[in-house]
This record gives sequence, structure tokens and C-alpha cells, in this order.
Amino acid sequence: MPTRTYYLHPKHFVAVDCSIFGYEDGELKLLLYPRGFEPARGKWSLMGGFVGEKESLEDAARRVMFQTTGLSNLFLEQASVFSLPGRDPGARVISVNFVSLIRIDLHDKDLLEEMGAQWWPVTRLPEMIFDHDEMVKNALLQLQQKAMIQSLGKELLPEKFTLTQLRSLYNAIFQKILDPGNFRKKILSMETIERLDIKNATTSKKGAFYYRFIDSVMLNQSKSVFNLLVLLFMNSEMIFS
Amino acid sequence: MPTRTYYLHPKHFVAVDCSIFGYEDGELKLLLYPRGFEPARGKWSLMGGFVGEKESLEDAARRVMFQTTGLSNLFLEQASVFSLPGRDPGARVISVNFVSLIRIDLHDKDLLEEMGAQWWPVTRLPEMIFDHDEMVKNALLQLQQKAMIQSLGKELLPEKFTLTQLRSLYNAIFQKILDPGNFRKKILSMETIERLDIKNATTSKKGAFYYRFIDSVMLNQSKSVFNLLVLLFMNSEMIFS
Repeated sequence: MPTRTYYLHPKHFVAVDCSIFGYEDGELKLLLYPRGFEPARGKWSLMGGFVGEKESLEDAARRVMFQTTGLSNLFLEQASVFSLPGRDPGARVISVNFVSLIRIDLHDKDLLEEMGAQWWPVTRLPEMIFDHDEMVKNALLQLQQKAMIQSLGKELLPEKFTLTQLRSLYNAIFQKILDPGNFRKKILSMETIERLDIKNATTSKKGAFYYRFIDSVMLNQSKSVFNLLVLLFMNSEMIFS
Repeated sequence: MPTRTYYLHPKHFVAVDCSIFGYEDGELKLLLYPRGFEPARGKWSLMGGFVGEKESLEDAARRVMFQTTGLSNLFLEQASVFSLPGRDPGARVISVNFVSLIRIDLHDKDLLEEMGAQWWPVTRLPEMIFDHDEMVKNALLQLQQKAMIQSLGKELLPEKFTLTQLRSLYNAIFQKILDPGNFRKKILSMETIERLDIKNATTSKKGAFYYRFIDSVMLNQSKSVFNLLVLLFMNSEMIFS
């Protein structure tokens, strides 16, 4: 039973904008597109789209990601909503920022080239439209919080990786050099990765063991996140030093 | 310069719903209202409102909070957005959940009574409308994450408080009993509270020192949160055990 109460209020355009991060050459990178329409056509922008009548924000973000990268089943998580009435000079648009992580080597390079998209190191980003720089800052902060709790990397690294590779990713995310011994101890105590019986012998004679992420942990479920938080809170062995 | 591109897309009702937490008798509580209109009139609901043409989500949340509690300048922070097309049987409404913290003893009791509002312990909540139970779960998780990083409590405790009072609040937020010695050591290492030269002599002969939150820390600014995160990440002394 609909109610007239609702229709006394205005409706708004709602959009999603995706902060898409990847990892390449030891750097955390962000995917940007030249905007396709006025105002600010041709300026660097996060990839985004308007939310349709019958789709959730998550559906809209997945659609945008598929259309622009050719990839589905990607990691996607809500970040903040940007809603100042004047933020978009074209019209009043409320935009929900999503954080996504993708393997740069896996996605469709032709599709990116067609759209004029480019990967930019997060330390050297170009000027972006509207409030997109604020969106990216906020998304990066959220990524850092996540990395602290969940040993991030499943979406950014190859299936098997060495601890040195994982630490390089963490260095890139936090823009700090982390101590190898402490990093090893603390990332292992999180119990979200497991050692394989295979070594990478390309970088040293002795070789370094490969690791992989444990599938069953299902870290994206709120309940597990809560349990991890409580562990982290109660037990300093769970956190990095 | 507006563009026709925008107007090819549908507009949506956008609402804010506030998860308002308080702290009383050693319990974390949530403020709920009987819904004032159909559908689901009379059922327990978070306090919410539609977003107007010329206000940001934050403005809308502040307006709703002022209208319902008589308080301004409250702690308010975005949580998740709920957007499944069928979530509200009245119409398609995209709702942004906000987390707010208020001192139960400070707010206008007459106003609450007029509206039939009630404070419910988070461990014993009644059935709520639509997806409001999911909103509350999500808001509580966000509060727990915040408490880990920022020594939460400024908004929930009196201006001066003992470490025992602060620990009781943390016990209520995490729904766990935290060890007094470890809690003391770790909360002090966060450097967000300072000891006063006054003692509370009402609970023991020796008396316990009062503490207060340090104003200058400005913990709500993203930059400070980032710095705290990096410290937390790099230095296990910053985290609870």
C-alpha cells in the first residue's frame, strides 16, 4: 500500500562512482577515464553511472564495472556518499562511491584503450572532476582499514605469492616501508593465508615459499569481520608491529 | 551548463535513517520510534526522513536529529546505504544509514514521550520495520571499528570519567568483558585521553583518577584517522590486548 506521504518529497538523481584500484610494478594504481559528456567532458573521472529504476546500488556498480573492464564477480564495497547540492554542475546528483580491486593483468586492454582509460599511481594522480579527489582519498583510507583487519591482497595478487610480494603490496597501500620480520609474524597470525609446498626459486638460491589465501575464511561476511575485530581488539598478536 | 544526458535517467526518493546509540546503566542502547505513517504505521523504526532538494545527506540527518531529540551539534557519521528496489513496500526509496551517539541524560525527555520513542538495549531489540535490523547490525559494527582506533566515548560519557567507567562502555560496545590491566595500558597508549588531578572517591577509599578526552586531537578528520591507522598498523603498543 503506497502512501501519499512519500510523494510530498522530491526525487534525486543517484549515481555510483567506482574507485578502481590495481597493483602493478610495486605501486598501487587507480583507473581513470576521460568523461564522455558535458559538463567537464574530456576531464579525468572515476568510472560511474546513474542508478536505474529496478537496480540496487550494488547492481549498478557491477554493471558499470562489467561495461568498462569486461570483468564480473569483482570485489566491490560501498565507501562514502557525496551529496552536497552543488557538487555536480550539471544537475543535483547524489553519488555513492564504491571501492573495487582488480588484477591489472587480467582485464580487457582493448576495452580500456577504446575508452581512453589509464592506470595512474595513487601517489601521482592527475586533476579529477568535481569531488572525485575526495572520493579517492576516502576510498584509500577505507582500503587501509580493511588491510589492517583482513590481510587484503586476494584480489590484487596472483593466486600464489611470496611473503615479500605481499609485503610489497602492503608497502604500496600504506605508503610506508614495513619491517619484514614483524610483517611476517603478524600477517601469519591473522590466519588468512596458508603456505604451499612450492618455492619461488627465481629471486634467491634458497628460494621463498609460496602462500595462498584461505578460501573458507569468507572474510567479507559481517559476522567474520566482527569476530576478527574482537580478536584484534583483545589480542595484540593479531596486529602488525 | 546542464546536459540532457542526465535527464535520460530516473530519479529516486532518498532518505536518511539514524541509528542513534546511547549508554545507560552499563548498557549500549538504541533509540526507536513508532513509525508515523503507512505502510507499517506504529511499528518500531529508526528515526528517519526524506532528503530535500537543497540539503546534503548530512544536513538531512542533522535536521532529523534536531527535530526528534532537540539536540544539535551531535556526532553523526555515514554508515551503509540500503537500496534493494523492494526494501520499502511504500515506494522505491534509497536510504542512507547514519550512526549517531548521544548522552541519554541530556536529551529532551518530553519530546521523546510525545513521539512514543523508547531506548532499547542493543542485546534485546524489538522487531523493526523493513531492513532496519540490518542497518543497526551494520552501524554497530562500524561503531566497534571506530572504538578500536579512536578511543570512543567522548559523546557517551560525562566530561570527566574514570578508566573503570570507560572500560564499562567498551565492554558494552564489544559485548565482551575486557581485562582491566590490558585495557588501561592500551587505551592510554592511544594518547586521546588525559588524567586530571581530581579523584572519584565514591567507589573506593583510595579513589580513582578522573580522565577527560583531549580536545585538540580532532579525531574525526580523515588525516588524523589515517595517521592513527598507520601507527596502529606499525606499532602493536597502539592496540588493545
